[in-house]
Amino acid sequence: MELRGLSLIGSETGVAGGATFHGFDPAKQETLSPAYHSASPAELERAVQLAAAAAPAWAKLPGRERNRFMRRVADLLDAHVSDLATRAAHETGLPVARCTGEVARTAGQLRLYGAAAEAGDWLDARIETAQPDRKPLPKPDHRSLLRPLGAVVVFGSSNFPFAYSVAGGDTASAWAAGCPVIVKAHPAHPGTGELVGRLVVAAVKELGLPPGTFSLLFDAGFTVGQTLVKHPAVKAVGFTGSLRGGRALVDLAASRPEPIPVYAEMGSTNPVFILPGALAEGAAAIVDGLHASATQGVGQFCTNPGVIILERSPTAERFVRDLGAKLAATAAAPMLTPGIVGAFRQNVGVRSKQPGVIQLVGGESGDPARIGSLPPCAAQPVWFETDAATFLANHGLSEEIFGPSSVVVWCRDRAELLIVARQLEGSLTASLHAGRGELAAQAELVDILAQRAGRLVLNGYPTGLEVSHAIVHGGPYPATSDGGRSTSVGTRALLRWGRLICYQNFADELLPPELQNANPLGLARLVNGQLTRNAV
Amino acid sequence: MELRGLSLIGSETGVAGGATFHGFDPAKQETLSPAYHSASPAELERAVQLAAAAAPAWAKLPGRERNRFMRRVADLLDAHVSDLATRAAHETGLPVARCTGEVARTAGQLRLYGAAAEAGDWLDARIETAQPDRKPLPKPDHRSLLRPLGAVVVFGSSNFPFAYSVAGGDTASAWAAGCPVIVKAHPAHPGTGELVGRLVVAAVKELGLPPGTFSLLFDAGFTVGQTLVKHPAVKAVGFTGSLRGGRALVDLAASRPEPIPVYAEMGSTNPVFILPGALAEGAAAIVDGLHASATQGVGQFCTNPGVIILERSPTAERFVRDLGAKLAATAAAPMLTPGIVGAFRQNVGVRSKQPGVIQLVGGESGDPARIGSLPPCAAQPVWFETDAATFLANHGLSEEIFGPSSVVVWCRDRAELLIVARQLEGSLTASLHAGRGELAAQAELVDILAQRAGRLVLNGYPTGLEVSHAIVHGGPYPATSDGGRSTSVGTRALLRWGRLICYQNFADELLPPELQNANPLGLARLVNGQLTRNAV
Repeated sequence: MELRGLSLIGSETGVAGGATFHGFDPAKQETLSPAYHSASPAELERAVQLAAAAAPAWAKLPGRERNRFMRRVADLLDAHVSDLATRAAHETGLPVARCTGEVARTAGQLRLYGAAAEAGDWLDARIETAQPDRKPLPKPDHRSLLRPLGAVVVFGSSNFPFAYSVAGGDTASAWAAGCPVIVKAHPAHPGTGELVGRLVVAAVKELGLPPGTFSLLFDAGFTVGQTLVKHPAVKAVGFTGSLRGGRALVDLAASRPEPIPVYAEMGSTNPVFILPGALAEGAAAIVDGLHASATQGVGQFCTNPGVIILERSPTAERFVRDLGAKLAATAAAPMLTPGIVGAFRQNVGVRSKQPGVIQLVGGESGDPARIGSLPPCAAQPVWFETDAATFLANHGLSEEIFGPSSVVVWCRDRAELLIVARQLEGSLTASLHAGRGELAAQAELVDILAQRAGRLVLNGYPTGLEVSHAIVHGGPYPATSDGGRSTSVGTRALLRWGRLICYQNFADELLPPELQNANPLGLARLVNGQLTRNAV
Repeated sequence: MELRGLSLIGSETGVAGGATFHGFDPAKQETLSPAYHSASPAELERAVQLAAAAAPAWAKLPGRERNRFMRRVADLLDAHVSDLATRAAHETGLPVARCTGEVARTAGQLRLYGAAAEAGDWLDARIETAQPDRKPLPKPDHRSLLRPLGAVVVFGSSNFPFAYSVAGGDTASAWAAGCPVIVKAHPAHPGTGELVGRLVVAAVKELGLPPGTFSLLFDAGFTVGQTLVKHPAVKAVGFTGSLRGGRALVDLAASRPEPIPVYAEMGSTNPVFILPGALAEGAAAIVDGLHASATQGVGQFCTNPGVIILERSPTAERFVRDLGAKLAATAAAPMLTPGIVGAFRQNVGVRSKQPGVIQLVGGESGDPARIGSLPPCAAQPVWFETDAATFLANHGLSEEIFGPSSVVVWCRDRAELLIVARQLEGSLTASLHAGRGELAAQAELVDILAQRAGRLVLNGYPTGLEVSHAIVHGGPYPATSDGGRSTSVGTRALLRWGRLICYQNFADELLPPELQNANPLGLARLVNGQLTRNAV
């Protein structure tokens, strides 16, 4: 496919003329063709009107048909994996193998969520049958389920050019729930976005779906995104990115005459607690595991382990020394964009000057005088250490630094470790390494962490996210804007795009099939308080 | 019980000293003893700290124990129904019989939600078991469920002194979900609030629950409520009341450093469509039914039918004339408070002056010159009629008038009726009266209404709310602040107070019982994609 640099407005291609920007290869420091044109106000309006017009049809589109479309998009992604991964690797500096794997994951998400749409159990269908003779008042017939919210806007992320971008998790879950989607492409990988977007448009056309099923808008700035979030016909927003960006959209949506939900997955420090017994049983394995988790993707994961909490002891100090040595030996690798590496360098610079904070591993990124010797856009791990009192007193140390930087927090004893745990900011994950002998004594710490994170990992690492029915990717603010009431990964992600509707004393033929007596779709339904797949 | 006029701070009684206010009997125009003292800042802080301290214990309190407590509160309400209904009737002007019935409904809610807490299926427990040999990567074990958000603040309503006040639906669903509750009492019925609150405190003490399980704060103004919503230890808010009041709290919560959800049930006009076939089959029954629905409780229900939409025809005109005659013959009855009747009179006054709006039924409330002849605080139905073009052009006609006032909207034809339907504001309900012969042709109208309301009623009336598993009491903004993604009535109300948490590769003994292999609580769980009550 030849790239054109234009937005996709339903089945039509946008026109040139808006402010332009380019993809950029951070490894080679090359500006990539073509120029990308910002969507015009008329294009934005047309995309929203198409989506709004498609919403009723999508609301009625059987789960089977949603699944068919999503499987087709998945198949197209798989068929074009080589082109896709090549372009994404150029635009992100990520290895081609990683990009290839991410395409597979993205296709897998589309298939899993599509299957969930077809199965339909997520709709929470409930039926209470009438009791006309009940005293003192007859009981009416009530039947209820989730229905799609309407047109959804998705903001692609910088760090997952496929899995959390154009046809990524937010888009896939919105389609599965029955919502048309308008994607605001992330400007860091516009070519990847266009390639994926054109495959989506091809699937829309092939299956004869409404053109408003999908639009993809480019923008050199922030206007398109802000206008979308404020648009009265937009009913919900998905976002993956920074705390600042996410919160700005959340605030914008909250200030609308009709507020709408913004499901923003934002900052997270993903604390890792390493207890004495775990180090006694196998410090070397934890050195390797934590090193891999912290350096994977040049630390550019929302689940990157950013705070490591230990009780001080000779064993723990040896562990941190060994980990430090391994981190120091990590080759520099390019970050996603010049802006991201610039922010990383600035943030580690600020942190290195905090009183009571020691730079444990500097790499060249940690030393302004030596940054010049790094490859362009590249970063090496920069780790810090500090004591619990300093950590608790300096809020900046609790903030995420996006990239390969973490802070080791030394606690005097178990009591201080529990204090640190209680004061952690909300995170997507919290990990706990404990030895066999000390596991049983961790109930209190686990309870505390369950208040601070959406996923608790025992004797493992936060990166590497399984996409499944049971996964949770969300957490207390600021990890996610809704405080962890929802997840952006896994089949529960569909629930974000639904609202409840109840039919009272309805004629069977006027009910949606999900609620009809015969249960033609074979859903699990709560009928008079009992879960059943039977007819009523 | 002798009333004391003081807040209940956990198990302690507050102190006198704050600004005072009194209950008021709107029928007799009598100020009621005792004086109620506003909670002091220290009392508020103590209530929040107690609730926050109780939150971990409540999060772990087995559903069985939550149910036991809630059943005890229900039993105490039943045992004191006479005292409760008597005081509430004085404070609200509502008939004693209505108050008695509402106590029973409130006790029923507590028992239903308590039973749901004990059953535990609402927790959405999900398990994906590990596949250590999976290629290319092992699959971890993931187990997830909903956990309580923490301390919840509930704002009691004016119009339901029991069912949506101190131990009403918001409180009951929060307890069932495992959250301690601080209630901000509605100032219109403080004595009723105190009586219920003291029964709750008695149950808390009797069962040895943490004192922070429940507090009840009085306030002559708005400071207590605003301070509660802004307090960092408060994690969610329930509200039933006006659009202005609800939106103010929503905006306040959105502006917090850590935003929290406000589940506000606010304004709703509850449109009723009456089609030609329905009138042909039985206009007289609809006159009676609609009259009863519109005048019940002096129109002071959130589901009061506020907009009636018909195609103009001689039959329809006769129907409206008959309905008008019945409305005009309705005896005046006191509204809840002098403030509410004042707002009602002002709002109907404004509406009566709108161009193109005709006063169909005035009563004395509709005639400023004759208001003096009404009993104090009393109102009679004031209905208006207008044509669709006027209705669509004047947004004020779409706004709820709280009280016995509705507007009949005349449509030229079916096409205009569909235009009105499409432009309706969000409502809790939409009702449709259709004859047998025209039912099958209503799919389009039903689809439109499903976009505009949370509950669709066929050949019935919006008032009279069944509390069940399947009911939905929520709707697109401005009916509810979250656009109808949740319900404040029925067992789904518990879902509002939960957030998701996932345990990865956890030792069975560190898991909450809901997720342990043996399934000791017998929950319905999604295990590897299959719903089952079996052990893993």
